[in-house]
Amino acid sequence: MPFTNRDFYFAPELSEEAVSVTLSGDEYRHLARAARHRAGDVVGLTNGTGLVAAARVESIGRDRAVLLVEELFPGYGEPAVQLTLAVGLIVPSRFEWLVEKAVEVGVTRIVPLVTQWSERRRGVRLERLRRIAVAATKQCQRAVVPGVAEPVGLPERLETVDQFDLTVLAEAESETSAAATLQRTAQWTEGERSVLALVGPEGGFSAQERQLAAGAGAVEANLGPRRLRTETAALHLSILLLNIPTR
Amino acid sequence: MPFTNRDFYFAPELSEEAVSVTLSGDEYRHLARAARHRAGDVVGLTNGTGLVAAARVESIGRDRAVLLVEELFPGYGEPAVQLTLAVGLIVPSRFEWLVEKAVEVGVTRIVPLVTQWSERRRGVRLERLRRIAVAATKQCQRAVVPGVAEPVGLPERLETVDQFDLTVLAEAESETSAAATLQRTAQWTEGERSVLALVGPEGGFSAQERQLAAGAGAVEANLGPRRLRTETAALHLSILLLNIPTR
Repeated sequence: MPFTNRDFYFAPELSEEAVSVTLSGDEYRHLARAARHRAGDVVGLTNGTGLVAAARVESIGRDRAVLLVEELFPGYGEPAVQLTLAVGLIVPSRFEWLVEKAVEVGVTRIVPLVTQWSERRRGVRLERLRRIAVAATKQCQRAVVPGVAEPVGLPERLETVDQFDLTVLAEAESETSAAATLQRTAQWTEGERSVLALVGPEGGFSAQERQLAAGAGAVEANLGPRRLRTETAALHLSILLLNIPTR
Repeated sequence: MPFTNRDFYFAPELSEEAVSVTLSGDEYRHLARAARHRAGDVVGLTNGTGLVAAARVESIGRDRAVLLVEELFPGYGEPAVQLTLAVGLIVPSRFEWLVEKAVEVGVTRIVPLVTQWSERRRGVRLERLRRIAVAATKQCQRAVVPGVAEPVGLPERLETVDQFDLTVLAEAESETSAAATLQRTAQWTEGERSVLALVGPEGGFSAQERQLAAGAGAVEANLGPRRLRTETAALHLSILLLNIPTR
């Protein structure tokens, strides 16, 4: 863990060839004012698309700072399982909380799902959710900022099921426990590790939606006898899926 | 899952011998006004100390409601693992969020931990945390309200280690993964299932504290390469521990 106790900055221009990186705007202010770094300090950079670097502060100007790249760490902090988490719309504050936590535990992509019983009225503040994803990526020191997709209907989302090695639908009324569903992954090799998780809004999925998902190849899993809030169920299932043992 | 889609009420007077239960105060208002129940409706009751019941509304008065107990479900919604979660003090809003989520995923007891680097100034609003625990217990339909203990120092807490089958300390710098640590539980029988989880505040435990815990028999586990916030680490470790497979 080379980055324990270092702070991270978002530097989209960072590439494998970059020798230096310039921070301006919020990232500059965070570095120079909030964290009070000085020339010579070493911090972390993430480009949000797969690359993390250790970089030394070369100079701090009035509105920008120049850093020299010292070492590259491709894929730093990224989990082995690529998890797309599609979640029924709930009240915004709880969805925002979920985005922060999903980024921390290692989700690759978050999809707000429009379902029969989802919260529609209050809408999705996509820009806000994406800012939260960037902040959480820096906080938890990942190489990739998980994308937050445009809201999509369940039937449309189900058309992508073939792109995944496994699609799991969280369902309180299912007879199959999450543990039993994850048995399916016991024979996975390194190459097969993309999962789509579907979690309903408050009230869950309708019988019609469950049938539709099953028809598309999704397997159901219950998360135990306790009735979980949507965001808790989503995080619970994510943690189980992201911790599938490697062979 | 007999209670899917039913709401729950907190009824401390519910016992195995109770034929009827009277709700007043907040629980009455929730039943009669917010949820607008009428005589004949069936709801869930939890006494918070191990018992859940299905009960039929017999009568609704001006400030109280009488319900008749129809069926008892001892231990409803309780997990097989008894998990005590001791967590370094962080800012109150994040600790409150953790209490709600810990109750939902099945933690038995929450202990605010005073450590070398924990937030001390802002204190712990115990009454508020306990109200959150009761609300979450009803929400998720458990038979037991998890206790929220008085804050305690780490050394004092470590004196109780002998009461547990396993003590795990979450530590980002540990060489041992959580998966490897949980291998220790692979041979557990039904009787051995009490775990103490120790999670540091922002900044983690000090080297001295890690040594102290190791001396008391705690084993360390890291939760992967991402730097997790305290409340995320606590929930992550809880979910892994509460989902240890049964033999």
